[in-house]
Amino acid sequence: MTIRNEAISVGRIIAPRSIALVGATEDYGKFGGRILHHLIEHGYDGVIYPINPKRETVAGLRCYPSIADLPAAPDIAVVALPAGLLEATITACGEAGVGACIVITAQLGEFSEAGAALEARIVEIARRYKMRLVGPNCMGMIVPGANVALSSTPTLRYAQTMRRGNVAFVSQSGALMGALFVQAHDHGVGLSGTISIGNQADLDLCDFTEAFLERDDTRVVCLYIEGLKSPERFRRIALAARAAGKRLVAVKAGRTEAGSDMAKSHTSSLAGSYSAFEALCRDCGVLLVDDPDSMIICAGILAANPAMGTGGVATICASGGGGAIIADRFALADVPVARYSEATRQRLDTDYLRSHQNNPLDLGGHVGGLEFRVFENAIEAVHGDAGVAAFVYVMTPQPLMPQTLAKLVEIYRRAEKPMVFVLNTSRFAEEQRQALLDAGLPFVTRTDDMIRALRLLLDDRAATDLMRPDAPSRLAGPALPNALPEGFLTEPVAKALMEGYGVAVPRAQLTVSREEAAIAARALGYPVVLKGVVPDVVHKSDLGLVKPGIADEAALLAAWDEVAKAIAAAAPGAAPRIDVQQMIGSGVELIAGIANEGDFGPQVIIGAGGIHVELLRDVVQRAAPVSPETAREMLESLRIWPLLNGARGAAPLDVNAACDAISRLSWMAADLDCQLVDFEVNPLRVTGSGAIALDGRGTLLPAQA
Amino acid sequence: MTIRNEAISVGRIIAPRSIALVGATEDYGKFGGRILHHLIEHGYDGVIYPINPKRETVAGLRCYPSIADLPAAPDIAVVALPAGLLEATITACGEAGVGACIVITAQLGEFSEAGAALEARIVEIARRYKMRLVGPNCMGMIVPGANVALSSTPTLRYAQTMRRGNVAFVSQSGALMGALFVQAHDHGVGLSGTISIGNQADLDLCDFTEAFLERDDTRVVCLYIEGLKSPERFRRIALAARAAGKRLVAVKAGRTEAGSDMAKSHTSSLAGSYSAFEALCRDCGVLLVDDPDSMIICAGILAANPAMGTGGVATICASGGGGAIIADRFALADVPVARYSEATRQRLDTDYLRSHQNNPLDLGGHVGGLEFRVFENAIEAVHGDAGVAAFVYVMTPQPLMPQTLAKLVEIYRRAEKPMVFVLNTSRFAEEQRQALLDAGLPFVTRTDDMIRALRLLLDDRAATDLMRPDAPSRLAGPALPNALPEGFLTEPVAKALMEGYGVAVPRAQLTVSREEAAIAARALGYPVVLKGVVPDVVHKSDLGLVKPGIADEAALLAAWDEVAKAIAAAAPGAAPRIDVQQMIGSGVELIAGIANEGDFGPQVIIGAGGIHVELLRDVVQRAAPVSPETAREMLESLRIWPLLNGARGAAPLDVNAACDAISRLSWMAADLDCQLVDFEVNPLRVTGSGAIALDGRGTLLPAQA
Repeated sequence: MTIRNEAISVGRIIAPRSIALVGATEDYGKFGGRILHHLIEHGYDGVIYPINPKRETVAGLRCYPSIADLPAAPDIAVVALPAGLLEATITACGEAGVGACIVITAQLGEFSEAGAALEARIVEIARRYKMRLVGPNCMGMIVPGANVALSSTPTLRYAQTMRRGNVAFVSQSGALMGALFVQAHDHGVGLSGTISIGNQADLDLCDFTEAFLERDDTRVVCLYIEGLKSPERFRRIALAARAAGKRLVAVKAGRTEAGSDMAKSHTSSLAGSYSAFEALCRDCGVLLVDDPDSMIICAGILAANPAMGTGGVATICASGGGGAIIADRFALADVPVARYSEATRQRLDTDYLRSHQNNPLDLGGHVGGLEFRVFENAIEAVHGDAGVAAFVYVMTPQPLMPQTLAKLVEIYRRAEKPMVFVLNTSRFAEEQRQALLDAGLPFVTRTDDMIRALRLLLDDRAATDLMRPDAPSRLAGPALPNALPEGFLTEPVAKALMEGYGVAVPRAQLTVSREEAAIAARALGYPVVLKGVVPDVVHKSDLGLVKPGIADEAALLAAWDEVAKAIAAAAPGAAPRIDVQQMIGSGVELIAGIANEGDFGPQVIIGAGGIHVELLRDVVQRAAPVSPETAREMLESLRIWPLLNGARGAAPLDVNAACDAISRLSWMAADLDCQLVDFEVNPLRVTGSGAIALDGRGTLLPAQA
Repeated sequence: MTIRNEAISVGRIIAPRSIALVGATEDYGKFGGRILHHLIEHGYDGVIYPINPKRETVAGLRCYPSIADLPAAPDIAVVALPAGLLEATITACGEAGVGACIVITAQLGEFSEAGAALEARIVEIARRYKMRLVGPNCMGMIVPGANVALSSTPTLRYAQTMRRGNVAFVSQSGALMGALFVQAHDHGVGLSGTISIGNQADLDLCDFTEAFLERDDTRVVCLYIEGLKSPERFRRIALAARAAGKRLVAVKAGRTEAGSDMAKSHTSSLAGSYSAFEALCRDCGVLLVDDPDSMIICAGILAANPAMGTGGVATICASGGGGAIIADRFALADVPVARYSEATRQRLDTDYLRSHQNNPLDLGGHVGGLEFRVFENAIEAVHGDAGVAAFVYVMTPQPLMPQTLAKLVEIYRRAEKPMVFVLNTSRFAEEQRQALLDAGLPFVTRTDDMIRALRLLLDDRAATDLMRPDAPSRLAGPALPNALPEGFLTEPVAKALMEGYGVAVPRAQLTVSREEAAIAARALGYPVVLKGVVPDVVHKSDLGLVKPGIADEAALLAAWDEVAKAIAAAAPGAAPRIDVQQMIGSGVELIAGIANEGDFGPQVIIGAGGIHVELLRDVVQRAAPVSPETAREMLESLRIWPLLNGARGAAPLDVNAACDAISRLSWMAADLDCQLVDFEVNPLRVTGSGAIALDGRGTLLPAQA
């Protein structure tokens, strides 16, 4: 058995110097034929080893009967054989010292248990030979920067030449790789490379992301993600990318249950909670998009332009109606629009009435006759406005298209601020389209994508402020008790745990008789609340277990009897255990939750409490722990923030206390880590002078001894 | 002075038998040249009269020196002269008996006061001669059904032939007419016609909508609207269209303030409240879209397909990743998806594991080798499922494209259920694109538009149930008082008005001294509320004018003093007038408003009250009056509906009483009509046993004697 000295690097896999094609043929109708032709047509300048026992040469290249017959070990071998031949072939590749096998073969781990077992076996074989695997169930790769057109997708023949550029795309979907390759090509977006990673049996999304980021020709890496194997590694890579001035842009399937289910049967990826992924991306500056086609185009615009500075968006178009619709859509999509400076207005005054100096500016709304000078002046004036941070031009069928386009290309090349060019002409204006492609000015064709491109520029501008590259520093005080409880945590237990972390809870006394309760109430001072303690009960109020606003002893005794009855009903045979609690003043109720999201780690989730929980679904999630500053950002992002901040002139509440409490809870989550299944504080009441956890429950696993 | 016997019909204007072109030339670079060439190239079969004093013939046609020299009165004349020549030319046209002038000339009413005055004068001239005007500030029309290519838009030359079909488009924007013409052409949507109506100085949107609806070749009329001149006429036309099995689809600018402002400077249209327009559309079955390009394509899909029946959407694609994203986007856009029947599953079992029988179905996820039979069977199985009400096929670069496409065309032609075809291949798959165009199967190219097309089909399916073709019948009881108050209505006055309409208000007594208040409170029974009566005060609570929960006389007297002090602060010198009111039990608070929206008439607006007003902006608006049934639909559409309907097992509130109160308030709005400026009930509290207007204020204009 021959074994390589060391594994090939992933960077070398995506830019291989030699490629073995198992099953090579001249027939373009066959898989092995398409790959071979694409490699040749797109000028691969490394060595190609066709392997086909029936042929001496294929497409003019010397052909070899088997992997074992190769004169040298190839960097990579492409394998698209039926599953039955896979083990033997992978072994032969290993024996031959192949650096990496790209396994196209599908119906493995994503398909059946037998497939998963076979997949595990080929990984084992590969490991034995220090050989890497791409796939299985993948579609190859297209790396213009290395002249590698190693895929059977017919879009490669369509494209004629691969448009080189600084956007990479790592895809968990093979079909999307082909689809996005053509979208990029047709919208003037040059690629440094794209790869379909399939089931990620060995090499995964992070490996290829890293490999593309290492390439000098890559500025933005796009990702289509179904499931993330290692969130922590992803985080490190993303932060390193940012530090190097590069960007990650991602679409992730599984925002909804329906999407999750579909992703699961596609590449056997457990999608994981989208909100945990979203929180992770925010922490490490990864930009999210909702549509793959749009992602590759918008990423091209991001990669081709300078970053967006301070200010708003200015749009020029040649349709008053189109402009009005854009104004509406910007307002609805929260796209900030620029107000022209007086200097800009004066410059526009030569041709446009003040009443027509809108943003969007309709070029057609000028005074007097049509001259290109009018358009040119307007474009320069608006683009030059210091308050304009991004410039949008929407070209619909309009007068003076060639001159206007030439002007815009000139401005784009100045690279002063990002330009989003919208060629909204369908198939009309083919000359302009070609001119844009020739100029290397990436463009969108629809308003939807224009808004997404602006969103990406805006999100990128905001990302630095929102990122949390480092863990927050620990607050003073928090500590776990020596003996941790296990299983369902009742309210008193949950509160004791929180108290240990410095989270304020109402003063309370657990009582087992009316007499004890009366003594406790006197000590706490009226008014008080009674709460029946019953394990496993989530909505205590619904079962009559909570009696608030008890003003005196007579009321207390009556309420005690009622709660005792409710306990007997909820948990027959249970002894009455009733908590007597201090009443807390009014305020705004939050819900604070902790969830353990597997590889994503413990998460803290804050939302509007009370009736808002279900009505508003107004929640925000971050990985624990969070600092009080991050907690404040979370609160500010809630729709109910105005209530905390003193809506309608009311005195603002004690937001600092709320932030502190959230941070402390998040540390509890971080410290308990995977022992903590879930934890919920509902409500966390924020008053004018504090933030108090009025209720709590949770579930803890036993410590792993 | 010659005067026509009768005005030409609008139907004849859009299908004219003779056209005079003022300023006709052979130069395609000039406006008059482009129109002439387009008319000839697209086979206009009526009479063309070129008018040009310098020429004998133009493009082989006999040319006339002036309008006055024409051998017969033309149906229409096209005028694109500078403003200075307009009056004389319009007069000459009138003298010559022209049926209608299409006035392209811009910079009139939309531009300046002088322009508006000139516009008014040409209207006056036209009226004098019973001549109609289209525009000014318009771009002509394209009516394939009448071979009329009467526009200078170069998209006409691009299109080569006008695609005939059953979709019309009436546009307040000329640029959009040209842009949407090409969008329709390129997406397989045939037009019956499109017209740019400009400033609507004479003929307006309703006139042309009606004219297109009268044509047999029209099934759907699309509208781009900036401002609606006569909502009531629009309503009648829309209802008549529905009754005839035709549909109106509209995009309206001015959903936001920014869009409104832009629309105003574009065609001098006051956009009017979008919510009033939305309410009108709902009442009369007009379908709304947010994007003009998408509107024309989606309308083509609506017009080309049978109506959507009962059931959900089924999607087939050839990308697992693409399918997962579609699943997510459908879930987020509330697109109902079909569940396959057992029969369908069994049919799919031949090639797909149950775990891979998803919706969307990824054709590529089959067992065994690739054969077209597999795709065919899957498409037939899913399309044939009785629970599938609409069928989506997403074509990305995929295997077996020609056969798959042919199969889908065959299914489409069966016209059993609507099909939305997504050709998501950018410029790849040009053969398939041509095949779709040849087959007359309209298609979208992006997921965004696919969702909009489905939304349109779904909205159309729901429209019949939501429409209110007739005014509701009057409830018993409501009556206006003999003497109406005027100006700002204080709470007691507003409540008296509501009481007259049978809306429940708390029992109350207006008092001017502590002694009177004490007597009143005893009569009403404690607890009571005190409210200071001060005109023009909106947020009474903020000024300390409201004291709720007064339990006894001591508290009452103390509270009286405080409110009196607050009155003195709010309205220095005013005598203390304080309302003593019955306390109403707890419940859910609504806000009910009445607004007068000019031509749209009085409107009733219901929303979540209390703190929700500003946080949720959870409101619904309809034209007054509304029946209790419509009021219930309004409430059901609110996000807080679960609270009214008994959220989390609580007893449901008295929704019937709330519906009754809303209906009664809407009748008050209808009866007061334009006298009522505004009226607000905040809150309308819905309890377990009633709905009570706890506060009210408003403004009434004096009656027009």
